[in-house]
Amino acid sequence: MPTNTDIAAERANSNINARDLTFTLYGEDGAYRRKLAFERADKDQAFEKSKKFSLMDRDKLYDEAIRMETVVAQRLQEYGYNNSKDIQTFLDRGYFLSAVFLGVHPFAIHFGGFIPSILGQGTPEQIQEFLPKAECMEYIGTYCQTELSHGSFVRGLETTATYDKSTEEFILHTPNLSAIKFWPGGLGRSCNYAVLMAQLVITGKNYGIHPFMCQLRDLNTHQPLPGVEVGDINYKFGGNALDNGYLILTHYRIPRTHLLMKYAQVSPDGTYTRQDVPPQIAYLSMTFLRTILVTASASSLAKAATIATRYSAVRRQTANRDGIERQILDYQTQQMKLFPAICTAYALHFSGAALQSAYNDILASVGNGDMSRLSELHCLTSGLKAYSADISSHHIEVCRRSCGGHGYSHASGIPDIYQQNVINCTVEGESTVLYLQVGRSLVKFLKKADSGEKLPPALAFLSESSPPTAKLTLRTESTLDFCVSVFKYNIVQLSRAVTHQIAQSLSTNSVNLEAALALHSLELVKTAQAFAQYLTVLMFVDGVKGSKLNPKEKLCMLHMCEFYAIHNIVEESGQFLKNEALNAEQLSQLCQHRTFLLTKLRPNAVALVDAFDYPDRLLNSCLGRYDGNVYEALYEYAKDSTLNQHQVHPSYHKYIKPMQQAIRAKL
Amino acid sequence: MPTNTDIAAERANSNINARDLTFTLYGEDGAYRRKLAFERADKDQAFEKSKKFSLMDRDKLYDEAIRMETVVAQRLQEYGYNNSKDIQTFLDRGYFLSAVFLGVHPFAIHFGGFIPSILGQGTPEQIQEFLPKAECMEYIGTYCQTELSHGSFVRGLETTATYDKSTEEFILHTPNLSAIKFWPGGLGRSCNYAVLMAQLVITGKNYGIHPFMCQLRDLNTHQPLPGVEVGDINYKFGGNALDNGYLILTHYRIPRTHLLMKYAQVSPDGTYTRQDVPPQIAYLSMTFLRTILVTASASSLAKAATIATRYSAVRRQTANRDGIERQILDYQTQQMKLFPAICTAYALHFSGAALQSAYNDILASVGNGDMSRLSELHCLTSGLKAYSADISSHHIEVCRRSCGGHGYSHASGIPDIYQQNVINCTVEGESTVLYLQVGRSLVKFLKKADSGEKLPPALAFLSESSPPTAKLTLRTESTLDFCVSVFKYNIVQLSRAVTHQIAQSLSTNSVNLEAALALHSLELVKTAQAFAQYLTVLMFVDGVKGSKLNPKEKLCMLHMCEFYAIHNIVEESGQFLKNEALNAEQLSQLCQHRTFLLTKLRPNAVALVDAFDYPDRLLNSCLGRYDGNVYEALYEYAKDSTLNQHQVHPSYHKYIKPMQQAIRAKL
Ligand SMILES: Cc1cc2nc3c(=O)[nH]c(=O)nc-3n(C[C@H](O)[C@H](O)[C@H](O)COP(=O)(O)OP(=O)(O)OC[C@H]3O[C@@H](n4cnc5c(N)ncnc54)[C@H](O)[C@@H]3O)c2cc1C
Ligand SMILES: Cc1cc2nc3c(=O)[nH]c(=O)nc-3n(C[C@H](O)[C@H](O)[C@H](O)COP(=O)(O)OP(=O)(O)OC[C@H]3O[C@@H](n4cnc5c(N)ncnc54)[C@H](O)[C@@H]3O)c2cc1C
Repeated sequence: MPTNTDIAAERANSNINARDLTFTLYGEDGAYRRKLAFERADKDQAFEKSKKFSLMDRDKLYDEAIRMETVVAQRLQEYGYNNSKDIQTFLDRGYFLSAVFLGVHPFAIHFGGFIPSILGQGTPEQIQEFLPKAECMEYIGTYCQTELSHGSFVRGLETTATYDKSTEEFILHTPNLSAIKFWPGGLGRSCNYAVLMAQLVITGKNYGIHPFMCQLRDLNTHQPLPGVEVGDINYKFGGNALDNGYLILTHYRIPRTHLLMKYAQVSPDGTYTRQDVPPQIAYLSMTFLRTILVTASASSLAKAATIATRYSAVRRQTANRDGIERQILDYQTQQMKLFPAICTAYALHFSGAALQSAYNDILASVGNGDMSRLSELHCLTSGLKAYSADISSHHIEVCRRSCGGHGYSHASGIPDIYQQNVINCTVEGESTVLYLQVGRSLVKFLKKADSGEKLPPALAFLSESSPPTAKLTLRTESTLDFCVSVFKYNIVQLSRAVTHQIAQSLSTNSVNLEAALALHSLELVKTAQAFAQYLTVLMFVDGVKGSKLNPKEKLCMLHMCEFYAIHNIVEESGQFLKNEALNAEQLSQLCQHRTFLLTKLRPNAVALVDAFDYPDRLLNSCLGRYDGNVYEALYEYAKDSTLNQHQVHPSYHKYIKPMQQAIRAKL
Repeated sequence: MPTNTDIAAERANSNINARDLTFTLYGEDGAYRRKLAFERADKDQAFEKSKKFSLMDRDKLYDEAIRMETVVAQRLQEYGYNNSKDIQTFLDRGYFLSAVFLGVHPFAIHFGGFIPSILGQGTPEQIQEFLPKAECMEYIGTYCQTELSHGSFVRGLETTATYDKSTEEFILHTPNLSAIKFWPGGLGRSCNYAVLMAQLVITGKNYGIHPFMCQLRDLNTHQPLPGVEVGDINYKFGGNALDNGYLILTHYRIPRTHLLMKYAQVSPDGTYTRQDVPPQIAYLSMTFLRTILVTASASSLAKAATIATRYSAVRRQTANRDGIERQILDYQTQQMKLFPAICTAYALHFSGAALQSAYNDILASVGNGDMSRLSELHCLTSGLKAYSADISSHHIEVCRRSCGGHGYSHASGIPDIYQQNVINCTVEGESTVLYLQVGRSLVKFLKKADSGEKLPPALAFLSESSPPTAKLTLRTESTLDFCVSVFKYNIVQLSRAVTHQIAQSLSTNSVNLEAALALHSLELVKTAQAFAQYLTVLMFVDGVKGSKLNPKEKLCMLHMCEFYAIHNIVEESGQFLKNEALNAEQLSQLCQHRTFLLTKLRPNAVALVDAFDYPDRLLNSCLGRYDGNVYEALYEYAKDSTLNQHQVHPSYHKYIKPMQQAIRAKL
């Protein structure tokens, strides 16, 4: 079919080269590898059906997903995607898997949680023993932590692992209903193994939560072992190809050597020893996962923005006085739905990249024995993970609604993106819980600054406390400088205010610190959110400034930075005004300038989303098609409904007709 | 099972009587009738399976829904719920249907769109002919307006109805792909009739959009008639029990008398005549539907808030220094998720009631020939419909996430509530499109005020323009007065600013009015939203003040009003500060007071949601159960998964085992 003329015109009239941006986003080499991984999934007949996952009933869906997993296992070998230790392979595998399944899949936690836990928590000998079996899929594993009544509060887990010296075994046990393991991905039907977190008990003494390698099913028959009750937890908001599961263990024995002993050991006679490392070290793999989730949120949003923007270029609605219907992309209100989404996707993408490089830097220092930046890293990753999950979900839903009625059809592809992305607000640290941690850190950092300590790089600005001096002149570079100084000052003010309030509560209400912090949780969260938001602005601007873009493309990206920075200030303008980081006059200027910038972004809207370079397979959307033939696609999608198998649905003969006859007979 | 002790304690320690509030919400008689309708559905074995709708595949789900529809048809007669003209019956039927299906259902548009269209658009003779057939389910109908490429812009519909004088027929025709009718509920497989909107063409002249009674399927065989291609449009974000459909008509003939002729007539010889009534008259049934949707949004939110609040009373997470885990309902941050949701549900409920009584008043004036308040009515219903759909959806999703991981399970019940409620942001007027209309009306009203015209009651405040004089003293009554004056002044400022900007654009940019309005759409939307928000505050306060509550209950409700008003100001504080409706000092005071009010609302949180009086059947939630036994329920829900039919899923033998063997063979 020929390309829709409206969308063709958008591409012809754009004044930037989308490829340039693509290379900036993923790196030139990265962009090619990514494309290759996507194409490998796309051309593979074995993976055809995942495009229709949302239409299948749960049992078929799962069956099909497992079939695909087993094909995937071959392909990973074939394409050299299965070296779990190499970061490039890790990324390539991620691209490939995302294109194969278009979302979570039964073995997702095997690759993303089980294997990393062995690597991160096992001794070299344990790794040598367990890893090959996990890599050749003899062990199919999950990460088993959450229980029915405890997720966020890990110390509260109730499953026990009691050491029995006489047999040199741990006895794993679920003491009551609320201790049932609940949620682990793949636990329901797919896995035969788990890394399981439990309270370690030795001769009556509790040593806290430790990780255990725990076999769940017979390796030959896949039957649950005696003492193991395991099952799927049923239907969820999204991601139903994955069998999140529950697990009840009844005095279930595993060998002593199945405690993963990198950081803590139990000897045969029951002697407990523990390495003296900062707790953050043991959580580094979770920290890494959080950096990945920032990029994942960026990707989800990029897809939704691509779909909604392309559709808005094709959709025409409402005739003007001359009888001409405009592309909805031309309406200011529509632009104000889409352009913040596009810019946020870019901002989060650059933030994810900056975070990963900060992670690598800090990891290197840790390798050299320097632990000083671990709490900075924790603060950055927790804040950015929570913020990017929240804000991407918000914009994805705005994108969905911006497609009007068709956005509600699964054919739009956006419901699925939302349902899968929004879980990032909850897993790997629930947003509020993370913000509270970040807020408390900021207060601590501020106190350090006040007592003259040098702060780590990302927090150094807390030592500055002068109001923004830069005058607001609306030229891109200086607007950006102004905005950044506004963000900084606002955070300093917020941190200072909450610190002050906490001190006051401590002195006047005679409460302890814990209670004082609780009394000011709302402010702590606000401060943390402001900090994370500021980070995304900064990382976006730095990323663009540091890129090797050509002038036109660079200018366009700087306009996006400008728009993004202003938009974030305007949408939260209350706190900026209240904190005198800004005055009302400046706010008005920024507001107007934001509207002006819409006109700057408009001509490149389609090019900007094309640059994300998501092939049609990954968008899986009738509305987001590259060729813009949306109505043809919707019609085809409709015809495919299972209800259309018969012209007259069997329920007519079974129910409707008899009902009509019964009523007629009565009349 | 005994009631969970935490939730029992909440009820024992509340200082209000939930029943009192229930009677205030629904009226004493109304509360009983509602309960009766719910109980009738609940005790009826025939409707057992709707609780598991979200677990069924589409075909089974539809089949089951149709079976239930046919039982419903009997029950409606039995219970006297089937007089379409009586408002009390209409409400009772609504309660009953919502309890039976827990969402949309195949015949929803038959009752909610088809029959009302006949009543609203037909002549008395036509009503006499068609209505009995619709009521006895010989005709099962839908309302067929939207096409693939046109929804919001009704004038843009392309389906034609060309009059053929020679046979006295209209020839209905779908001229091209983009004109395919798309979305009408029940069109896919359930309906044999539709009220269909098409461009009326007589001897080459187009008379615009008119409604036609259009038979789609044979009344005896249910086969689509020749010239009719009809089908289901496949899987959607929510509401999959309903077969939204598509329709292609090919030179399809219907009798002349099937034009619904209340407002426009075509005589046998092709003469066209039209009644001279304001266009809003013809849309009164849509206006009525919008008032209903305000209440529907309130109900959805009430359900979500009930679930999340009860769960938060039962859920304990994170031990304090003394090792005690608090109910998450005790955390400030959790309260700030739940209490705005609860208060908004109340506010929207009162708004819906106030709107319905305004509707009745204005309808009565129209009956007396007074058309003066029609544009006020349009403004109120459009603004409130859009705002309540948007804000309820927002809070529902906050409630869902406030349940942590378990909120993501369909077992929580909230995904379903969200998926069904959010559609109200799009149907019956897309939110932005409605806000734009309201914004433009406000500008017009302001101009009238400025030229000395008297404004209708709800808009009279636009004539006032003095800044809030009331001083802020934080006592409930005076806080409320202060807040209301702040809202009013803010809207006046917003309306005045945008009016001024439009005038400026007209004079300096030499554009026409349409273009000038387009240049300031963002401000128009903001103004409309502020107006709608203000209405909910006002209607909430008026509703509470006018109620016959006992003192304690009244005080509690006034605290909710206060919290609601302040919350809305604080969350949008930027515009209030910018418009000088408020100063920074006052904002700080309000902020602090809002936190203080959390402690006032806390003891009654569970009672406040109990007062919504949703039985477990309607919540359909493991987390929202009245008895608080959430973990038991989650475990039962999990076990019910189709994946748990076999201990070892068949896919293991088909795929996993061979894959493992193949890999082992290669090693
Ligand atoms: C799709 C999905 C996949 C998952 N996969 C896995 C997996 O593979 N393995 C695994 O082990 N687990 C898994 N989980 C579980 C997941 O890790 C937890 O659900 C998550 O950590 C959130 O914890 P929670 O459910 O206990 O939330 P809660 O902590 O109960 O949160 C509920 C509410 O309480 C609030 N709250 C909690 N504590 C505090 C506090 N101290 N102060 C203030 N407010 C508080 C929160 O802000 C939230 O609003 C998964 C969950 C889902 C939904
Ligand atoms: C679940 C469901 C059930 C439905 N049931 C029925 C039914 O029973 N019968 C029936 O006939 N139809 C039905 N519909 C269709 C529904 O009425 C339309 O989808 C709805 O009116 C929205 O119109 P649209 O899809 O054309 O959105 P669009 O107008 O295309 O909206 C897309 C975007 O364009 C923007 N936009 C549009 N016009 C303008 C403008 N002038 N200025 C600025 N922005 C603009 C909107 O704000 C939005 O962001 C149903 C739809 C759904 C999803």
